[in-house]
Amino acid sequence: MLSCIAEVRVTPILISDPPLLNLQGVHQPYTPRTIVEVITGSGVVGIGETYGDTDYLNIAQAFGPELIGGELTVNDLPARVAACTERVGAQRIDNTVQAEGLRGSRSMTKIALSVSSAFEVAIWDALGHELGLPVHALLGGKVRDAVEYSAYLFYRWAEHPEPDEPKDTWGAALDPEGVVAQAKRMADDYGFSSFKLKGGVFEPAQEVAAIRALAEAFPGQPLRLDPNGAWSVATSLEVAAQLEGVAEYLEDPTTGTSNMAQVAARTSLPLATNMCVTSVDEIAEAFRTDAVQVVLSDHHYWGGLRATQDLAAVCRAFGVELSMHSNTHLGISLAAMTQVAATIPGLRYACDTHRPWQTEDVITEPHTFSGGKLAVTDTPGLGVELDRDSLAKLHKRWQESEVRTRDDAAAMRRVHPDWTAPAFPRW
Amino acid sequence: MLSCIAEVRVTPILISDPPLLNLQGVHQPYTPRTIVEVITGSGVVGIGETYGDTDYLNIAQAFGPELIGGELTVNDLPARVAACTERVGAQRIDNTVQAEGLRGSRSMTKIALSVSSAFEVAIWDALGHELGLPVHALLGGKVRDAVEYSAYLFYRWAEHPEPDEPKDTWGAALDPEGVVAQAKRMADDYGFSSFKLKGGVFEPAQEVAAIRALAEAFPGQPLRLDPNGAWSVATSLEVAAQLEGVAEYLEDPTTGTSNMAQVAARTSLPLATNMCVTSVDEIAEAFRTDAVQVVLSDHHYWGGLRATQDLAAVCRAFGVELSMHSNTHLGISLAAMTQVAATIPGLRYACDTHRPWQTEDVITEPHTFSGGKLAVTDTPGLGVELDRDSLAKLHKRWQESEVRTRDDAAAMRRVHPDWTAPAFPRW
Ligand SMILES: [Mg+2]
Ligand SMILES: [Mg+2]
Repeated sequence: MLSCIAEVRVTPILISDPPLLNLQGVHQPYTPRTIVEVITGSGVVGIGETYGDTDYLNIAQAFGPELIGGELTVNDLPARVAACTERVGAQRIDNTVQAEGLRGSRSMTKIALSVSSAFEVAIWDALGHELGLPVHALLGGKVRDAVEYSAYLFYRWAEHPEPDEPKDTWGAALDPEGVVAQAKRMADDYGFSSFKLKGGVFEPAQEVAAIRALAEAFPGQPLRLDPNGAWSVATSLEVAAQLEGVAEYLEDPTTGTSNMAQVAARTSLPLATNMCVTSVDEIAEAFRTDAVQVVLSDHHYWGGLRATQDLAAVCRAFGVELSMHSNTHLGISLAAMTQVAATIPGLRYACDTHRPWQTEDVITEPHTFSGGKLAVTDTPGLGVELDRDSLAKLHKRWQESEVRTRDDAAAMRRVHPDWTAPAFPRW
Repeated sequence: MLSCIAEVRVTPILISDPPLLNLQGVHQPYTPRTIVEVITGSGVVGIGETYGDTDYLNIAQAFGPELIGGELTVNDLPARVAACTERVGAQRIDNTVQAEGLRGSRSMTKIALSVSSAFEVAIWDALGHELGLPVHALLGGKVRDAVEYSAYLFYRWAEHPEPDEPKDTWGAALDPEGVVAQAKRMADDYGFSSFKLKGGVFEPAQEVAAIRALAEAFPGQPLRLDPNGAWSVATSLEVAAQLEGVAEYLEDPTTGTSNMAQVAARTSLPLATNMCVTSVDEIAEAFRTDAVQVVLSDHHYWGGLRATQDLAAVCRAFGVELSMHSNTHLGISLAAMTQVAATIPGLRYACDTHRPWQTEDVITEPHTFSGGKLAVTDTPGLGVELDRDSLAKLHKRWQESEVRTRDDAAAMRRVHPDWTAPAFPRW
């Protein structure tokens, strides 16, 4: 008999983040994450991570204690977290915050699932440690020994505006040359051989030029552009025409399933999304209308690793490809992404990861990419261990800071006081 | 570290079966099943069952040894069994046998998945015994403590034509009165409170009369009629009009997704199927055209328990209900059905089961329905144990018999020499 859950810890932290640009603004110097620990009666610890914005944190803190005394099972988590969110979270959710324009429409259901995902991953990790099995074995077994990731290129400033804010050695990237230089370092340092550029920052022509410059620097290697829905249908079609035969897919060129379907119908370029298909109730319309050809799964969005496998099954049934989205994350989530990706047959696109941009982590041995890949570990659970010193340090930073949400527009206003996140479509 | 698979046994058996009528003919006195055992290095035994017809048995016997030395994981099974089928089974598959008209179109892929399912279930069972966990816990945990089944009513003869063939005490059911009497015994003996009639045997008017008689005998209780695609679109619509407000759904009134979609568009009665959606590549068209409102999953068809959860996810995304189909099966498969059904949120229709018609079993403690339900066991694995004496006896029967396939039309010809399975639509 397995021991039950004896203790749950929910720890908010702030992690440093470089000044990466996107449609909504710029990444803040520090961004919140929530770290979850599920501790069993036998002392085993399972860990998970998710968004740290106040709404998410409030629900996680409210739900955590509900797990105590329960078993290491996950199928009832989505319903339980939803009920908790309904009960205690409803009055605390601020639906006016629109910083999440990067992940599509905002809803209580989506927030609850993102919280649920942290507990789901922590339970799988704990179960793996209890049983001496890697998480992939608990998910039915790996079908590959390594998972390929793609370089996630960003337009960026060299540094944040204030002198005491976190710095790195990447320098600015604000034109095609800067993007290519960044890509070269990504390839040199980590072996990535496919490249995604976060777009929506400059006029489409400049971003097309950056993709063309990448194509020249990395002939034949897969390239992607993701403007987070910045473009109209007409602009999307113009860009698509220019990038057919150059990019492997276009990611969320425009917002909404209907617009995406109009673009998809008139280009041979596959369309990928982590904006118009981000929850179960958004699948049917998108698949019925052939609006998307690649769904970029994110186990945080969908509610965990089993939900990611579920999404993969739906995609398989409709001939839609699956790959993985990444938001700013640490090594716990990267381990979780790698474990579940290992179990999904037929992944043909390298997964996204922000990991190289994060200089801090909460695990004792942060991942290192080799040949753009991560090996699928067979050690118990997720195969990573919590670095308690680091967790304490990053939690102390959270306690001493007033930063409680990620707000890219507010960060941008520190430099451009008149900045507001643009209305869609921007171009 | 878990022990690997050390031995695999594949045992063909013949089980007795009553003279149940359907569109294709009548059940034979004996029908083949394949029992699979997966034995680990530590001596743990996991069990599974599937179809026993020659094609299935040949593939199972060819594939079994390929598992030896491997781990207790399942995600790669479908691809491995498919490759084995391709390699050794292709020349042995007889595509002229059409007895499977009851389960939709026949293909190598479907046969391979049905074989795969037996090994998948056996591996889950073995893994559960190795880890001391019920199968449902390995599938993410149960969301209910009991699974509801429905009474599976058949038109039937009192007995098979030859005097030495298996007998039972149910008597004939060849008209509405006989059907109601059968239903009453099903309700009395097992507590079933929903009822499915296997139709396609008599003219639609007589089968409608049987459903009406059931509605009178069991007011307000859920009723279903399944003619296995016997009807044209026009006939289906006539029957649907007569049964709206009487039946809870109509199962495969007509064959093929296109016909089903035409019926579905013009009736308020939900349409269920285990014929037009029986494999992943049949889902998209059916769901895009709203051809079916309930998919009757069968873990044998789909390749196992994880595949059943996958199907449930696809259904959930498209607002299609999931319930369970049953073909003649024994207690191993009933345990597997119950374990996986326990993990699927939102099951609102009672599952089908032939179990009450089978007087023989290969487990030591055959299931007993209480209130039409089976409790979800928390004992390790499937929670059932192989009865080796029974297995040996039923295997001996197989060895001494010439019956190698289930052929309902051939069985019917023993009584009606001119019988041929009817062309679709029959009415
Ligand atoms: Mg994106
Ligand atoms: Mg049926």
